[in-house]
Amino acid sequence: MTIFSKIVKGEIPSYKVAEDDRFYAFLDINPVAKGHTLVIPKREVDYLFDEEDDEIAAHMVFAKRVAHAIKAAIPCTKVGVCVMGLDVPHAHIHLLPLVNEGDMDFKKPHLKFSDEEMKAIAASIAEKF
Amino acid sequence: MTIFSKIVKGEIPSYKVAEDDRFYAFLDINPVAKGHTLVIPKREVDYLFDEEDDEIAAHMVFAKRVAHAIKAAIPCTKVGVCVMGLDVPHAHIHLLPLVNEGDMDFKKPHLKFSDEEMKAIAASIAEKF
Repeated sequence: MTIFSKIVKGEIPSYKVAEDDRFYAFLDINPVAKGHTLVIPKREVDYLFDEEDDEIAAHMVFAKRVAHAIKAAIPCTKVGVCVMGLDVPHAHIHLLPLVNEGDMDFKKPHLKFSDEEMKAIAASIAEKF
Repeated sequence: MTIFSKIVKGEIPSYKVAEDDRFYAFLDINPVAKGHTLVIPKREVDYLFDEEDDEIAAHMVFAKRVAHAIKAAIPCTKVGVCVMGLDVPHAHIHLLPLVNEGDMDFKKPHLKFSDEEMKAIAASIAEKF
């Protein structure tokens, strides 16, 4: 079972932003930006493009809803998308609030928020979902 | 009209990889990796998450088909996804062949291919589509 499946099952805690019957969204604990969120299918699938057509379609529509909630909660110009998929073998769409193109940079120093701050960020996005 | 709409109409040349009635895929002329492709809707929409649900769903399913073609044509571990959207105001999904996580880096020196090389890369992906 992947670490993300354990998060979906609640065996590992997460800062949950949203979920429905098929997808789950939660804050990245190593955020590149405030509000950096991961959107995953509850079904374990490693490679995004191995998702079935209806699954990847629904995944993106769910991510769109999450992105609108992020944009409503976190000041930004747009919400960007990134999928690399070479670390955790469970497809995850990164949603990142962007102000400048350079904000999409996974090599810059990541941010640190306290547990209380992370809870507050997740709650602020969840409220807009 | 955006520069990408001019590309779709053929007013500006592009290294076309694939198209259907709603979407168009072509090589990024400033590639971060060999096979770096942009996938756009033919309809002009600036922000990816302003696409209608059925549109963003179909956009992603079309991108999946293009990604499979890229993976079949270009040696890589996975095809990554990136959408920033702060330059050209016409939603575009970057598809990037990845070997390592660090390959998703828009700040590293971009690659240069000759016109003939770009044509050959586009043709090799188109053939697998």
